[in-house]
Amino acid sequence: MEKFRFLTSGESHGKCLTAIIEGLPAGVIIDTDFINSELKRRQQGYGRGDRMKIESDTVEITSGVRFGKSLGSPVCLVIKNKDFENWQKIMSVAPEDYTDEKSFSVFRPGHADYPGAVKYGQKDLRNILERSSARKTAIEVAVGAVAQLFLKQLGITGSSEVTQIGSACCPEKFHEEIDMNKEKGDTVGGKFIVIYKNVPVGLGSHVHWDRGIDGRLAQAIMSIPAVKVVEIGTNPLGLCGSEYHDEFDIIDDKVCRKTNHAGGIEGGMTNGEDVIISGVMKPIPTMLKPLDSVDINTKQKAQAHYERSDVCAVESCAVVAQARTACILANEILLKYGADNMEELTQRFS
Amino acid sequence: MEKFRFLTSGESHGKCLTAIIEGLPAGVIIDTDFINSELKRRQQGYGRGDRMKIESDTVEITSGVRFGKSLGSPVCLVIKNKDFENWQKIMSVAPEDYTDEKSFSVFRPGHADYPGAVKYGQKDLRNILERSSARKTAIEVAVGAVAQLFLKQLGITGSSEVTQIGSACCPEKFHEEIDMNKEKGDTVGGKFIVIYKNVPVGLGSHVHWDRGIDGRLAQAIMSIPAVKVVEIGTNPLGLCGSEYHDEFDIIDDKVCRKTNHAGGIEGGMTNGEDVIISGVMKPIPTMLKPLDSVDINTKQKAQAHYERSDVCAVESCAVVAQARTACILANEILLKYGADNMEELTQRFS
Amino acid sequence: MEKFRFLTSGESHGKCLTAIIEGLPAGVIIDTDFINSELKRRQQGYGRGDRMKIESDTVEITSGVRFGKSLGSPVCLVIKNKDFENWQKIMSVAPEDYTDEKSFSVFRPGHADYPGAVKYGQKDLRNILERSSARKTAIEVAVGAVAQLFLKQLGITGSSEVTQIGSACCPEKFHEEIDMNKEKGDTVGGKFIVIYKNVPVGLGSHVHWDRGIDGRLAQAIMSIPAVKVVEIGTNPLGLCGSEYHDEFDIIDDKVCRKTNHAGGIEGGMTNGEDVIISGVMKPIPTMLKPLDSVDINTKQKAQAHYERSDVCAVESCAVVAQARTACILANEILLKYGADNMEELTQRFS
Amino acid sequence: MEKFRFLTSGESHGKCLTAIIEGLPAGVIIDTDFINSELKRRQQGYGRGDRMKIESDTVEITSGVRFGKSLGSPVCLVIKNKDFENWQKIMSVAPEDYTDEKSFSVFRPGHADYPGAVKYGQKDLRNILERSSARKTAIEVAVGAVAQLFLKQLGITGSSEVTQIGSACCPEKFHEEIDMNKEKGDTVGGKFIVIYKNVPVGLGSHVHWDRGIDGRLAQAIMSIPAVKVVEIGTNPLGLCGSEYHDEFDIIDDKVCRKTNHAGGIEGGMTNGEDVIISGVMKPIPTMLKPLDSVDINTKQKAQAHYERSDVCAVESCAVVAQARTACILANEILLKYGADNMEELTQRFS
Repeated sequence: MEKFRFLTSGESHGKCLTAIIEGLPAGVIIDTDFINSELKRRQQGYGRGDRMKIESDTVEITSGVRFGKSLGSPVCLVIKNKDFENWQKIMSVAPEDYTDEKSFSVFRPGHADYPGAVKYGQKDLRNILERSSARKTAIEVAVGAVAQLFLKQLGITGSSEVTQIGSACCPEKFHEEIDMNKEKGDTVGGKFIVIYKNVPVGLGSHVHWDRGIDGRLAQAIMSIPAVKVVEIGTNPLGLCGSEYHDEFDIIDDKVCRKTNHAGGIEGGMTNGEDVIISGVMKPIPTMLKPLDSVDINTKQKAQAHYERSDVCAVESCAVVAQARTACILANEILLKYGADNMEELTQRFS
Repeated sequence: MEKFRFLTSGESHGKCLTAIIEGLPAGVIIDTDFINSELKRRQQGYGRGDRMKIESDTVEITSGVRFGKSLGSPVCLVIKNKDFENWQKIMSVAPEDYTDEKSFSVFRPGHADYPGAVKYGQKDLRNILERSSARKTAIEVAVGAVAQLFLKQLGITGSSEVTQIGSACCPEKFHEEIDMNKEKGDTVGGKFIVIYKNVPVGLGSHVHWDRGIDGRLAQAIMSIPAVKVVEIGTNPLGLCGSEYHDEFDIIDDKVCRKTNHAGGIEGGMTNGEDVIISGVMKPIPTMLKPLDSVDINTKQKAQAHYERSDVCAVESCAVVAQARTACILANEILLKYGADNMEELTQRFS
Repeated sequence: MEKFRFLTSGESHGKCLTAIIEGLPAGVIIDTDFINSELKRRQQGYGRGDRMKIESDTVEITSGVRFGKSLGSPVCLVIKNKDFENWQKIMSVAPEDYTDEKSFSVFRPGHADYPGAVKYGQKDLRNILERSSARKTAIEVAVGAVAQLFLKQLGITGSSEVTQIGSACCPEKFHEEIDMNKEKGDTVGGKFIVIYKNVPVGLGSHVHWDRGIDGRLAQAIMSIPAVKVVEIGTNPLGLCGSEYHDEFDIIDDKVCRKTNHAGGIEGGMTNGEDVIISGVMKPIPTMLKPLDSVDINTKQKAQAHYERSDVCAVESCAVVAQARTACILANEILLKYGADNMEELTQRFS
Repeated sequence: MEKFRFLTSGESHGKCLTAIIEGLPAGVIIDTDFINSELKRRQQGYGRGDRMKIESDTVEITSGVRFGKSLGSPVCLVIKNKDFENWQKIMSVAPEDYTDEKSFSVFRPGHADYPGAVKYGQKDLRNILERSSARKTAIEVAVGAVAQLFLKQLGITGSSEVTQIGSACCPEKFHEEIDMNKEKGDTVGGKFIVIYKNVPVGLGSHVHWDRGIDGRLAQAIMSIPAVKVVEIGTNPLGLCGSEYHDEFDIIDDKVCRKTNHAGGIEGGMTNGEDVIISGVMKPIPTMLKPLDSVDINTKQKAQAHYERSDVCAVESCAVVAQARTACILANEILLKYGADNMEELTQRFS
């Protein structure tokens, strides 16, 4: 039941990340600068390690767009991995007579290593890590940026921000919390919020469980690497019914609400208020402090491998969540309004 | 990408609720008593109103099962609404010359009434309420019970319980919290947990966002009426990496973990530990205390309509969540192991 | 990518056939008489056997419709099997201590018996036959009738007829051909055509293979039991390009065509001309003449079991094809125009 | 219900064609030479025009494969358009101040031009043609070649050939028929056949219409550009039941058939015999002989634009059909056998 469909591909140290979006209407103005600015936002954030400097991702569009507008045909997005030349042998597509010195065999707790190796029958854990890495979220941000361009043309705008780092709920303390964990060789997670404004009434549906937009948003956020909690609107724990529910009002002859605890969603549908969704990201599993683990080959106890140097990536995660939310909203708008081109859609929308 | 597909139908006061499950392998032992016992669990719970007494749901299976075993063909489940005879005119399928005295037109905050009426172009809010009602979760529990029978045959068992009511985290205080809100004419929500044991390693996948089992579980739980928060495993907020991640151990030559903060899911895949998922249910939106609202016809301010008398339904919600989780797990097992009949599946599974 | 989704269930001699349709907009006028008249059309036809007299199918709607109009919620359709009481023991859902005298074990060539028994691990071929029987097309005709009611409200109308029986291409010879085969104890197939008028331009798409409406129609027709050939428009074999392609004209300032060899579909999209699709049905595989076969238990040669007495069912097949085509068109209209209620849809459509 | 999912993108004169395949198990041996040889087969064939010489397509794999084997992660395939540098301005992705001299506005009968322009709201028909062009089948052949590599590893092999050109059914006459049409400035279609050997019993299902493998194959073949007829096995028109149905036999203790009119499919499932599917391709719509048409801008009568010089492409079409069939079979095998890696799958398969 997807109209805005996409597939992504790409290994963390492979040649490039690619996405194909199928279902974008014709006539969406494709502003490459905006896509690149979202890619940049994803790479920033206090607590990120060194690779971010290497990356400086930019997108190339290889199909589906002509003279700055989408054609209605599939849109292909490519982000090159800039340090690929150093990895060409290790990540060779061709069958090679090569001994991979970067091969590793000790499962890292909190990563896909263990279930991935069992599922896909791999002995070299790099064969799992390369795809399970959060690197793949770069291309998802690009896809989400295209969805955001579509939404913007309809007046719908998104934003996101970090609301908690570790136990610090106040922005001034965020860097401090990160620094403290860095010093300990540890990592830290946190909470973020995504808000979309001017979302029309009636996206999603109450008529069947799998059409609720709340569930779809929850899937989109929970499946971001390292997210373990999703909340829509205000966490209702501890509030009674008369405190939690958003009473109606009429202002200037328009129906509105006195509060928005529901985060813009009632009965699995958007209700015209801002759509608000939060997520909690766990601490990054790769840390300087060693964790107890097991070697897949020897089946003996071992210490988990250390690969990357981020201490905190909640800021990036918020950008990814904003992107994913855009994809869900775009899909729901296309399901509700149909439309193969933006002229038609704009008419129906107003 | 569903192999265990199902559709449900039925209005709250219509003739019956129906579900068709497509994709169940042949040879699943269908124990109707178990399905009915799950239906009963859903109807119980301190804080439920009077309708629960009328209901006493039982399932009828009208296809897909012969001599106590599934055939591989679609399974049809029916739950009759026992008070339908009193609603026959109000809920008539045929075009009728009938004035519905139970028609209502004031939006209830927290319900699907407002977005549903806008989306489906309805003036009589009963046309929304009848389907948005949580009554439909009864047939979902029956579907989930069939999924649980399938899982049990593979040794996978589920359970669920309430972990918080309002601000009470301790079971002895739950009834007190409910009574207090009942006296105030208010309602109260809470938190529940679902646990599945003996889940194999490698359900879901890290290779594409929409294949992560974490996202699929989050969708299944978040789309339950009134659920606003979903958590997998331990909420990581405030824990640093070295505290949160589940170190490996080897006991009796088997790989295991020292903790299970991840709730049995790493990299979007099950890792062999118990699958643990929690949800927070908002307070029921229909309460004795009036809420400010608007009348859809007059477009004037009005007080929201009062229909039902539950004060708290978190226990029921936990049962629904257990059912939904079973459906997701059953689907993932069928995707991973294929198999059209239980003999084949049992072989592959072991 | 389905908006008009449905699942069906039911065994040939089970209690009933059921369908749930999810995705029908609110406000579709549900004329039960029309559904029943389509069911009747399916049961008629020269060459059908005795069961047709027992059946006289009628539909009951148990949800999704109120006061004669769809609500937007799932619509449940039920057709009772009128001779079920004679089959209650043989088709018992409960585990029974019953020896099925109607059990059979010799594969019938041309039926699902052999691959079905292998796939689902069954020894009693009734466990395959009961679902593979064309009996299930009755409920599909009911689903298609609902789709036709939806289409009619938009001015789109369908029809179907038989164009060939055996080697007879001329209607006056059809009965003769059937009688001749009946006398021989043989069966005969034939060809049928389905036509839909007033279909809007632009259903389907050229942008991705699985969005072409030609492919979707072909799937819908080819998967009807016993259909082996599907044609869209005129079979182009032997026509050169200048003969086959439909030149444009302008009449009364409207773009039109001089011919419609393409059957209303170019580039995977409807082009505004009548949608025309034909199918060839193979002869019914159950016949009085014995066919060489094998017994699943003894693994010895045996003669195939004789169960039913139809000689020719091409007329019925045409009705099923008309129904299936309606489902595809309804789905494509909902994908293109969106719309949750008929008022909105009618506006967008005009 | 797809496990072998893929999306393709790319305009006929754009930078490149791309495909992402999601769902391929780990451990498939990726032989790039085989993919390139299939691409070459697609480009050959008597009757193809000049572009074929420019093209000489070769694939580049940019993800999902390491050291010659699939990783289980999405596989990205790219085919560069070798004459892109001549089209860079005309096909610019960036908004350009460029007057497209290759813009055209007269609908070509038989092409997607008219319905595409209406659907996507385009005035420059190049915006439709670029994607509706059969050029996109090159990347589909690459995807199908990957599916074929997967099938081969399980012992399943495919082939295809042309069986009729125009009215010539005998291979020695094919070139003659093509030459004759070329001289007239006309085009000619024909018929092709695809055969897959060693397909296991039980792919597809009889239990629900959309699971029948016959329907899925029909969709895959009918949605190839220019295909208008699909046949499975022998066309049954004119054969009576006793002639058509494939009687069983036992040879060397193995169940087999005396004939294979059913084309290896009974009851929507493969039955262990060769899978045989044919298609009829219409004559290519672009021809030297002018066809009557209409100009989208002037709304006046005009002559259709001439773009390409193929006279006959049935040989290429057969290669595409073989590729598409491989994708359907691969998907069905993954649905039936599950399996995330080839080791596991090979075990289950035997």
